[in-house]
Amino acid sequence: MIRRLRHEPTANRDTLRLEAFTDGVMAIAITLLVLEIHVPPLESTRDGSELWSALGHLWPSYVAYFLSFSTIGILWANHHDIFTQIGRADRYLVLINLFLLLWIGIIPFTTAVLAEYLGHDGEKTAVIFYSASWVGIAVAYNLLWIYVHRAGLLDENADTHEVAAINRSFRFGIPGYLLALGASFASAIAALVVLFLMAALYLVPPSWLGAADPRHTHEEPPSPA
Amino acid sequence: MIRRLRHEPTANRDTLRLEAFTDGVMAIAITLLVLEIHVPPLESTRDGSELWSALGHLWPSYVAYFLSFSTIGILWANHHDIFTQIGRADRYLVLINLFLLLWIGIIPFTTAVLAEYLGHDGEKTAVIFYSASWVGIAVAYNLLWIYVHRAGLLDENADTHEVAAINRSFRFGIPGYLLALGASFASAIAALVVLFLMAALYLVPPSWLGAADPRHTHEEPPSPA
Amino acid sequence: MIRRLRHEPTANRDTLRLEAFTDGVMAIAITLLVLEIHVPPLESTRDGSELWSALGHLWPSYVAYFLSFSTIGILWANHHDIFTQIGRADRYLVLINLFLLLWIGIIPFTTAVLAEYLGHDGEKTAVIFYSASWVGIAVAYNLLWIYVHRAGLLDENADTHEVAAINRSFRFGIPGYLLALGASFASAIAALVVLFLMAALYLVPPSWLGAADPRHTHEEPPSPA
Amino acid sequence: MIRRLRHEPTANRDTLRLEAFTDGVMAIAITLLVLEIHVPPLESTRDGSELWSALGHLWPSYVAYFLSFSTIGILWANHHDIFTQIGRADRYLVLINLFLLLWIGIIPFTTAVLAEYLGHDGEKTAVIFYSASWVGIAVAYNLLWIYVHRAGLLDENADTHEVAAINRSFRFGIPGYLLALGASFASAIAALVVLFLMAALYLVPPSWLGAADPRHTHEEPPSPA
Repeated sequence: MIRRLRHEPTANRDTLRLEAFTDGVMAIAITLLVLEIHVPPLESTRDGSELWSALGHLWPSYVAYFLSFSTIGILWANHHDIFTQIGRADRYLVLINLFLLLWIGIIPFTTAVLAEYLGHDGEKTAVIFYSASWVGIAVAYNLLWIYVHRAGLLDENADTHEVAAINRSFRFGIPGYLLALGASFASAIAALVVLFLMAALYLVPPSWLGAADPRHTHEEPPSPA
Repeated sequence: MIRRLRHEPTANRDTLRLEAFTDGVMAIAITLLVLEIHVPPLESTRDGSELWSALGHLWPSYVAYFLSFSTIGILWANHHDIFTQIGRADRYLVLINLFLLLWIGIIPFTTAVLAEYLGHDGEKTAVIFYSASWVGIAVAYNLLWIYVHRAGLLDENADTHEVAAINRSFRFGIPGYLLALGASFASAIAALVVLFLMAALYLVPPSWLGAADPRHTHEEPPSPA
Repeated sequence: MIRRLRHEPTANRDTLRLEAFTDGVMAIAITLLVLEIHVPPLESTRDGSELWSALGHLWPSYVAYFLSFSTIGILWANHHDIFTQIGRADRYLVLINLFLLLWIGIIPFTTAVLAEYLGHDGEKTAVIFYSASWVGIAVAYNLLWIYVHRAGLLDENADTHEVAAINRSFRFGIPGYLLALGASFASAIAALVVLFLMAALYLVPPSWLGAADPRHTHEEPPSPA
Repeated sequence: MIRRLRHEPTANRDTLRLEAFTDGVMAIAITLLVLEIHVPPLESTRDGSELWSALGHLWPSYVAYFLSFSTIGILWANHHDIFTQIGRADRYLVLINLFLLLWIGIIPFTTAVLAEYLGHDGEKTAVIFYSASWVGIAVAYNLLWIYVHRAGLLDENADTHEVAAINRSFRFGIPGYLLALGASFASAIAALVVLFLMAALYLVPPSWLGAADPRHTHEEPPSPA
């Protein structure tokens, strides 16, 4: 009890610094993505129309940049929402979050592999590899949210509807990214479509996903008399 | 109503974390610009005067660095001013802001294309490409500000003169960058001059742009008697 | 006395900005690690299975990424814990912390050397070089913590059990990394195992290390009657 | 008057966000420095002792890294101290600070030029170029501090002794870096020594520089009776 109290005062500061570090790594990973888009070398083009053509041939880099940027960006926004419901951080939350960041930190590499091979031989391998990196992120992210529940780290003022909505939205993560991984064995395009759809799915506020529970349709119960 | 209230307490924290993430991406994008300036390789120069000459030949890199750094920097300062008038962030604001960051994140690439081709064949293509990336930013930025109005996200204590001034300053963004894009079809120099002038325009505090309204000339109405 | 008081009001802000800068450098260093993993060039592979093989041959890069990411990440978490016990920063603390950051900032390079040479001739040299960079970090980190004690920078509300636990955990740092350095002269694998074990050791909360003191086993003394 | 009041409430937040952005750019610039240290390619070395030799031949990179890291780090610490005396930020302070960041952002490039040419033909040119980039920083930094005075942006509770000490310390900046620039025309070593000495000078707390004023020797005047 004394122990718990001793931790209370620093609790808020803990999640803030954890969030700040996470934001930092995500902001850097998202911005490093641009380094995979290589400027067509001066020697390789003779005039403006050849440069247009060379810039056009970079379409796999643009697709890869757009997909990875959007997905990490939306992941960041959701991480942000989730942490508004978390009241304190302990050492294990910090470590699971680090494990998540380790996967996010590798995305600029898997994105660069995708950009290099999309539209060429080896494309299927690159898409499998890329999809697998998102499965890793989905697993790490689920571990984080499960641990928050198990360790009772939710804020005591957490919004129970919001928490329920986040729980529902997490149900789609691992299956969705596994589907993308499976699809990548059949068709690169299909896998990329699934990955775009997953990003779009997480664009939707969690509270819209599967709000089938009638109790959510009335915010205020009818008052008696 | 209850729903709205439930969001109020976290509102401020929301814009703060959004601003911090945006600052992070802008700070990284602005600092990555330096990576497009390539050190003259040791083998390519025989002595100090050849190194001077090689460093001089990098002028397109310096111009591109200066122009992109200034424009992102001034954009950051204005983003900062705008957010002092915004009271809360919702999910759509987060997403539109991500869309803005996606464009800003690509500037190190379009800047590198400009630096590689300025002064060579293909220059016109590079300047068109570079100008188009700023049109993308202007459009995303306008969407953000329009959405803030539509969704009523302005702070209830927002300074109405300041908001009016920001509104006026936004009128110049898309036309100005479209003008630069148009000019780039005619002349690289003309387009770069327009881009420099646009940066200079946004250096000016918004309240100076078009303060033609006589009500703004007196801060205090004359007191009676 | 007057002098001391004059500093008090800004003290907290000082450690916050110091922590924020440190977090920034660590977040960037950790994210730059990915740049050492090089995409297999398109020309070097003819099909998907050659790409799998090329991605597999990158295992030294994955090992190096994982080891450096984990170690810096855990170091960050501990730096974070330590600073919750520090009440104010003076100029020397800022400088010693900069010295620590100087070593952390070089890790992406020593990691890249490890990734390039692991599994090839020159491996032993690369592992010695890499281990030595962690000895540098351990020394800088110990200097920081010793200086905090000497200069009386602990927070007046610092948790004495926690401080004692941090003291105990610091005893392992320099000897452990020197052991890794020594092992690297004998065997690359042995050195990497020691480095992994050191990371695992610092995963453990400081209060678990050597809590041999019976006073720590009871958090609450038995109340009388 | 009304105008001034209208700005007051956001003032503190303004300097905080400005400081955070500055910290971000400095933390990134300082961490990007490592990218100028190039891993000796696997093909260029046949065994461990050749790798030692190759790592040893990188000494100019280590010197350049150490010098630039230390100088930016100490600059950051001083920027931090200066901003504890600044009460509010206006648009021009933001712009002058951006101008300072523009110079800091180019240091990874000038450092890489130094690292490439130190110890080779062209060394003198590289040292002149590198020293000149620090003169640019010194000029921008002085402009910032002069503007703070001119525009009355000091905090009303600014510590007058500290401000006087900062004023004194600024007297050394431009002359010192001009001396390094001048020395670089004569001797690369002499210029680097001056640059190291300048970093060491700014390690010293500003209040130690030229505290010739007897009023500073007694913090408390002798109380009567």
